[in-house]
Amino acid sequence: MSIAYIIPLFGLIALLFTAVQSAWVSRQDAGNERMQDIARHIAEGAMAFLKAEYKILTYFVIIAALLLGYMGFSHENSDWTIALAFIIGAIFSATAGFIGMRIATKANVRTAQAARTSLSKALKVSFTGGSVMGMGVAGLAVLGLGGLFIILKAYFGAEANTAEMVKTIEVLTGFSLGAESIALFARVGGGIYTKAADVGADLVGKVEAGIPEDDPRNPATIADNVGDNVGDVAGMGADLFGSYVATVLATMVLGSEARTADNFGGLSPILLPMVIAGMGIIFSILATFFVRISDSAGLSTSAVQKALNMGNWGSIVLTAIACVGLVYWILPAEPFYLQRDWIGGDALREGAIAITQNGVLGAIFVGLAVGTLMSIITEYYTAMGKRPVMSIIRQSSTGHATNVIGGLAVGMESTLLPIIVLAAGIYGSYACAGLYGVAIAAAGMMATTAMQLAIDAFGPIADNAGGIAEMSELPKDVREKTDILDAVGNTTAATGKGFAIASAALTALALFAAFVGVAGISGIDIYKADVLAGLFIGAMIPFIFSSLAIRAVGEAAMSMVEEVRRQFRTIPGIMEGTGKPEYDKCVAISTEASIRKMMLPGAIALASPLIIGFIFGPEVLGGFLAGATVSGVLMGMFQNNAGGAWDNAKKSFEKGVEINGETYYKKSEPHKASVTGDTVGDPFKDTSGPSMNILIKLMSIVSLVIAPTLAEIHVHKQEPPVAKQKPAPEAPAKEVAAVKF
Amino acid sequence: MSIAYIIPLFGLIALLFTAVQSAWVSRQDAGNERMQDIARHIAEGAMAFLKAEYKILTYFVIIAALLLGYMGFSHENSDWTIALAFIIGAIFSATAGFIGMRIATKANVRTAQAARTSLSKALKVSFTGGSVMGMGVAGLAVLGLGGLFIILKAYFGAEANTAEMVKTIEVLTGFSLGAESIALFARVGGGIYTKAADVGADLVGKVEAGIPEDDPRNPATIADNVGDNVGDVAGMGADLFGSYVATVLATMVLGSEARTADNFGGLSPILLPMVIAGMGIIFSILATFFVRISDSAGLSTSAVQKALNMGNWGSIVLTAIACVGLVYWILPAEPFYLQRDWIGGDALREGAIAITQNGVLGAIFVGLAVGTLMSIITEYYTAMGKRPVMSIIRQSSTGHATNVIGGLAVGMESTLLPIIVLAAGIYGSYACAGLYGVAIAAAGMMATTAMQLAIDAFGPIADNAGGIAEMSELPKDVREKTDILDAVGNTTAATGKGFAIASAALTALALFAAFVGVAGISGIDIYKADVLAGLFIGAMIPFIFSSLAIRAVGEAAMSMVEEVRRQFRTIPGIMEGTGKPEYDKCVAISTEASIRKMMLPGAIALASPLIIGFIFGPEVLGGFLAGATVSGVLMGMFQNNAGGAWDNAKKSFEKGVEINGETYYKKSEPHKASVTGDTVGDPFKDTSGPSMNILIKLMSIVSLVIAPTLAEIHVHKQEPPVAKQKPAPEAPAKEVAAVKF
Repeated sequence: MSIAYIIPLFGLIALLFTAVQSAWVSRQDAGNERMQDIARHIAEGAMAFLKAEYKILTYFVIIAALLLGYMGFSHENSDWTIALAFIIGAIFSATAGFIGMRIATKANVRTAQAARTSLSKALKVSFTGGSVMGMGVAGLAVLGLGGLFIILKAYFGAEANTAEMVKTIEVLTGFSLGAESIALFARVGGGIYTKAADVGADLVGKVEAGIPEDDPRNPATIADNVGDNVGDVAGMGADLFGSYVATVLATMVLGSEARTADNFGGLSPILLPMVIAGMGIIFSILATFFVRISDSAGLSTSAVQKALNMGNWGSIVLTAIACVGLVYWILPAEPFYLQRDWIGGDALREGAIAITQNGVLGAIFVGLAVGTLMSIITEYYTAMGKRPVMSIIRQSSTGHATNVIGGLAVGMESTLLPIIVLAAGIYGSYACAGLYGVAIAAAGMMATTAMQLAIDAFGPIADNAGGIAEMSELPKDVREKTDILDAVGNTTAATGKGFAIASAALTALALFAAFVGVAGISGIDIYKADVLAGLFIGAMIPFIFSSLAIRAVGEAAMSMVEEVRRQFRTIPGIMEGTGKPEYDKCVAISTEASIRKMMLPGAIALASPLIIGFIFGPEVLGGFLAGATVSGVLMGMFQNNAGGAWDNAKKSFEKGVEINGETYYKKSEPHKASVTGDTVGDPFKDTSGPSMNILIKLMSIVSLVIAPTLAEIHVHKQEPPVAKQKPAPEAPAKEVAAVKF
Repeated sequence: MSIAYIIPLFGLIALLFTAVQSAWVSRQDAGNERMQDIARHIAEGAMAFLKAEYKILTYFVIIAALLLGYMGFSHENSDWTIALAFIIGAIFSATAGFIGMRIATKANVRTAQAARTSLSKALKVSFTGGSVMGMGVAGLAVLGLGGLFIILKAYFGAEANTAEMVKTIEVLTGFSLGAESIALFARVGGGIYTKAADVGADLVGKVEAGIPEDDPRNPATIADNVGDNVGDVAGMGADLFGSYVATVLATMVLGSEARTADNFGGLSPILLPMVIAGMGIIFSILATFFVRISDSAGLSTSAVQKALNMGNWGSIVLTAIACVGLVYWILPAEPFYLQRDWIGGDALREGAIAITQNGVLGAIFVGLAVGTLMSIITEYYTAMGKRPVMSIIRQSSTGHATNVIGGLAVGMESTLLPIIVLAAGIYGSYACAGLYGVAIAAAGMMATTAMQLAIDAFGPIADNAGGIAEMSELPKDVREKTDILDAVGNTTAATGKGFAIASAALTALALFAAFVGVAGISGIDIYKADVLAGLFIGAMIPFIFSSLAIRAVGEAAMSMVEEVRRQFRTIPGIMEGTGKPEYDKCVAISTEASIRKMMLPGAIALASPLIIGFIFGPEVLGGFLAGATVSGVLMGMFQNNAGGAWDNAKKSFEKGVEINGETYYKKSEPHKASVTGDTVGDPFKDTSGPSMNILIKLMSIVSLVIAPTLAEIHVHKQEPPVAKQKPAPEAPAKEVAAVKF
C-alpha cells in the first residue's frame, strides 16, 4: 500500500514545475505600454467572467453538496463525506481553470513581445504558458485523487473487497462529480462567450464594416480575445481536468471490484491507473524539453509542428514503455476476475474474461492505438488540402447554401471511420481484459493529458498574441510569426478534440460498466420496452443540449451585432480611429449571456439521469446512458469535424484556391460563402461539439453516484411479480446471473 | 379462417375505386395546346426517369432473388419461395410508384385547367388524383399481403403454431423486403432528382438571373416539375407502400408467435392487422367524399385545410370505431401470450404480459394518439407564425450564417417532444399488450394510410399545376388558386412526415422484437462489449447515409447550375423568350445523377445488417439495429423539421415580416439569408430526412429475413465456452430464459 503515498507526490512535482515555469513566464518582457494596456483589458475581462461564473457556481455547489450530503446520511451504501469530496472536486476544477487563465493572460502579451525577437522565442514563451496549464491541471488531478484516496481509505478503514472500500470509492466518485459539473458549466459558458464574441465581431467588423480581424476600431475585439481565454483556455482546462479524473476514477471503480492476491493488499487494480497517470506527468514534464526549434529554422510552420509532435510523441512513447514495467511490477502474475464474474461465490459466469498482466498491457496499447488513429482521422477530415476540405471549397463556388450543405455532409461522413475505430477499440480492449480493459485503455490514452493540454493551450495563447500585436500595431513580421504558431494551434486543436471524444467514449463506457455493477443489475436488455424507451430519451439529450448551446451563441451573437452596430452609428470618429470604442459593453454582453445561457443545458445534464433513475429504475437509466453516449459521441464528432473543416475551407482562400480553373481569393463570392460556413461551424466546433464529451461523462458520473441508492430502492421494487395464470416453477432460475456486490 | 379470404377483397375494392376515379380524372379537360405540351414534357421526363430507375432495379431484384433463393434452399428454416415473394413485393412496389406517377402527371394539367373555373373544382381534380394514388397503394398492399398469405398457407399446409406457419410468415417477409428495398431506392433516387433540379433551378434562375419560379425561360424548370413527380409522388408512394406492408407484417410475425384458442384456428392475432388495414381502406374511400368545399367559400386556405382535415379525421374516427368491433369479434375473450413468454413449456416468464381484447384496443388507441400528437408537434415546429419559424426569421436579419444556425437549432430542438411521445407510446403500448401491442399500435396508426397518402399526393399535384399555369402563362388568378392548394399541401407534407417517422419507429421496434424471437436469442444486452460496439456502428449508419444523400444533392445541383449557366450563356435570345431552352439536357442530368447516386446508400442499408449479422451473430446485430433505429429516428426528425421550418421562414417573407420594427419583403437581405436556409433544408427535408424511416425499417426487415439462418449458425457457435479455472456448476442455468421457437 505504501506505493499509494507516492501518487500525490507526482501531483506535487507537477505543481512545483508549474510554479517554476509560471515564474519564468512572468519574468519575460511584457512589451510596450500600449501592449500592456490591451493585455490588461483582456485579463480584466477574463477575470470578470471567471468571477461572475464562479459566483453562480458557488450557489450550485452548495445546493448540490447539501443534496449529496442528505443522500449520504439517509442511505446505507453512501456516506455524507461525499458532499465534501464533491466540494473539493469543484474547487480543484475551478482552480485548474483559474491557473490556466492566469498564465494565458500573462503569456499572450509576452509571446507577442517575444515574437519581435524570434519565432523560437515566441514558441518558447507560448508553449511554456501552455505547459504551466497542462502540468497544473494534471498535477491537481493526481494530487486530489491520490490524496483523497489515502485519506478516505484511512477514514473508513477500508481494505480490498470490503464494504468500506466500496464506500471509499463511492465517496471518491463525488470528487469526480464535482470536477465534471464545473467542467460542463465552464465549457458551455466559455464556449458561448467565445463564439458570441467571435461571431458578433466578425459579422459586423469583417463583413459589414470591412475592417480586418482584431482591428482596435472594432468594439467587440477585446471581448473576442477574452473569449479565447475563457473558452479555449479556462473551459478546456476544466474539461480535461474532469475527463482525466473521470477516466482514472472509472478504472478505480472497476478495479475495486477485482478479487486479487498481490503485494499491495489486493489494491493493485485500483492503484495502477493512478500510478500510470503519475508517470504520465513525469514523462510529460520531460518531453516539454523536446519542444524547441532553432533560430535557423526560419518562419516555418512545419518546424513548429515537428517540435510539438516531438513533445507529444516523446511523452506517449516514454509513458507506454513505462507502462510495461508498471503493469508487471504492480499487477500480480496470477490472472484475476471482477467480482461480478463470480456467480454463486466460486463459479465463474459464462464468458468471464480473466485479467492478466499481458491483457492489461494489451488494453493500454489498444487505447493508445485508438487515440492515435482518432487524431489521424480527425486531422484528415479537417486539414487543408485534403479531400473533405477541398470538397467544401468546391461547393463554395455555387453559393452559401451549397457550402453549408458540403460542410454538413463532411461532418456526417467524418463519423464513419472514428466509430469503426472506437467499436474495434471497445471490442479489442474488452477481449484483452474485460471491462477493466476498457477502462484502462481510456486511462492509457489519457496518461499524457498534461502534454496534450500543454499543446492545446499553446494555441489560444498564440492566437491572443496575434490579436495583441494587431491591436497595438506592431510591425507586420510580428503578426506573421504569431500566425504561424496560431496555424499550428488550429491543427492541434482539431486533433485534440478527436482524442478527447474518443477518450470520453471509452470513459463513459467504463463508467457505464461500473454503474451496472454498483446498481446491482445483471445487464441492460434493450429488448425490454422500458429500457428501449430510455435509449430513445437518452439519445435525444445531445440533440437538445446542442440546440440550446448553438441557439445561445446565435442569440448572444445577435445582441453583440446590435451593440457593435450601435457603437459604429453613435460614437463619432470610431472608424477613423479618433473615437474610442466601448469595449467593456461588449465584454459585459458576452459575460451576461454566457452565464445565463449555460444554466439550462447544465441543468438538463444533471437532472435527467436523476429523473430517469429514480422514476424508472437502474436498468432504464442504463438504456438512457447508452443512448446518450452513442448519440453524444456521434454529435460531437459530427459537429467538431464539420466546424473544423469549414474553418479550414475558409482559411484556404487566404492563399487563393482554384475552382474549375479559376483562382479565388479573399473577398471573392466563394470566399464569402465560405465565411458563412465557418460562422455556422463556430458554435459547432467550439461550443456544442466539445461539450458532448463532458455531457456523456457527467451523466454517467451522476448515475454512478446515485447507483447505490437506486440499488436499495430497486431491491424493494423487485417484489415477486403478480401471480400468473399458471404456476412458474422454473422462473426464479432467471435471476441466477445477477451480480453480487 | 374463411375471414382470410375477405382480406384480398378489400384490396380489390380499392383497386376498383382507383380505376373508376382514374377514368374520371382522364375525362377532365386538359386545357389548351401549350398546357398539354408542357404537361407532356413533364410526363415524358417522369417516365424516362422511372424507366431508367426500374431498369437498374431489375438487375438488383434478380441478383437479390437469386441470393434469397439460395438461402431458402440451403437452410432448413427457410424456403426458396421467399425469392418469389421478394420479386412480387418488388413488382407491387414498383407498380404503386407507377400508378401514382401516371395519375399525377395527368391530374396536374387538369388541375391547372380546373383552376380556371373555380377553387372547388381544382381541389376536386387534384384530390381525386391523390386518392387514386392512395387507394392504389393501399389496395396493392392488402391484396398482395392477403393474397400471398392464403396461397402460402395452402402451399405449406400451415396451421397456427406449427413450423409450417413459421415458414409461411418467413416467406411473407420476403414480400416486405422486396417492397421496402424498392421503396428505399425510389425515395433516395427520387429525392436526389427532385432536389438537384429544385436547388439548381433556384440558384441560377431565382438568385442569379432574377426570374420567378417556374419561369419557362429557365432550362431547369421542366426538370424541377418532373422532380415533384418522381420524388414527392413516385418516391413517396413506394415509401408508404413499404411502410404499410412492413407494419402489417411485423404484427403478423408477432401474432404468429401467439398461442391462442379462437374461432379462426388460432390465427386471429395474424389476421387482425390485415383486417384492420382492409377496414381502413373502406373508411378512407368513404371519407374521400368529405373532402370538398363549396364555391361560395372564396379563395380561402383554411377552407381547403378544413376539407382535408374532415377527410383525414373522418377516416381515422371511423376506423377507430370499427376497430372496437373488429377486436372483440376476432380476438378470443381469453387472454393469451406469445410463445417466447412460455418457459419450459407451460410456465410463464417473469414479467410476461397477457394479450387481451381490451389491451389490444388500448394499444391501438395509444398508436392513434402517438400519431396525432406527432402531427401536431411537427406542425408546431414547421408552421408559419409559430415560435420556431419566427425565431429563424429573426435570425435572418443578421445574415446567412445566423439563419442557418437558427434552423439547425430548431431542428435539433424539435426532437424533444416527439421522442418523449414516442417513448411514452412504446411504454404504453407495451404495457397494454406486450410486444404485440407495440406492433398493433403501429398498425392502428397506419390503418388509414390510403387517406394519408391521398392527402400527401394532392400537394405535389397542385404544385405541378401551379408550375404549368406559370409556364403556359395562364391568368394570374389561376396561379393564385393553385398556390392556395400548394400552401395547404406544404402543411400536410410536413405533418405527414411526422406521422411517417413515428409509425416507422414503432414498426422498426416491432420488427426488432420479431427479430429477437426468430433469431433465437433471449435478449440484447448492451452491457456486453460486442453488443455495445454494434450499437455504435448502427447509430453511425444514418449519419453516413444522410451524408451520402445530401452530398449527392449538392453535387448534382452543382452540375445543374453549370448546365443552366451554360445555356444562359450560349443560347441566344433565351432571356428574351425568343430562344428555346434545352429542357431535356437538365432532365438528363437529374436522371443520371439520381440513379447513379442512389446505389451506394442503398447498398449500405442492405449490406450492413448482413455483414454484422453473419460475422458477429444475432445479438450484436440486435444492438446494431437498436442503434440504427434510435439514431435514424432522431436524424429523420431533425432533418425533416429543420427543412420544413427553413422553408416556411422563407415563405413568410412573401407577405412581409417584421423584425425589430422594420418590415422586410422578398429580395431584402434577410430574405436572401432565408433562401440560403431553405436551400440547405431542401435535401434535409426531401432527400435524407424522409429516407431515414425506410432505412431503419429496411435494415430491420433484412435482419428478420436472415434471422432463421443466423439462428442455425448461432446454435453451432454456442458450443460450451472454454474451460475456466474453477468449475461452474450453476452456469448452465443462465440459458433457462432462452426463447423456444
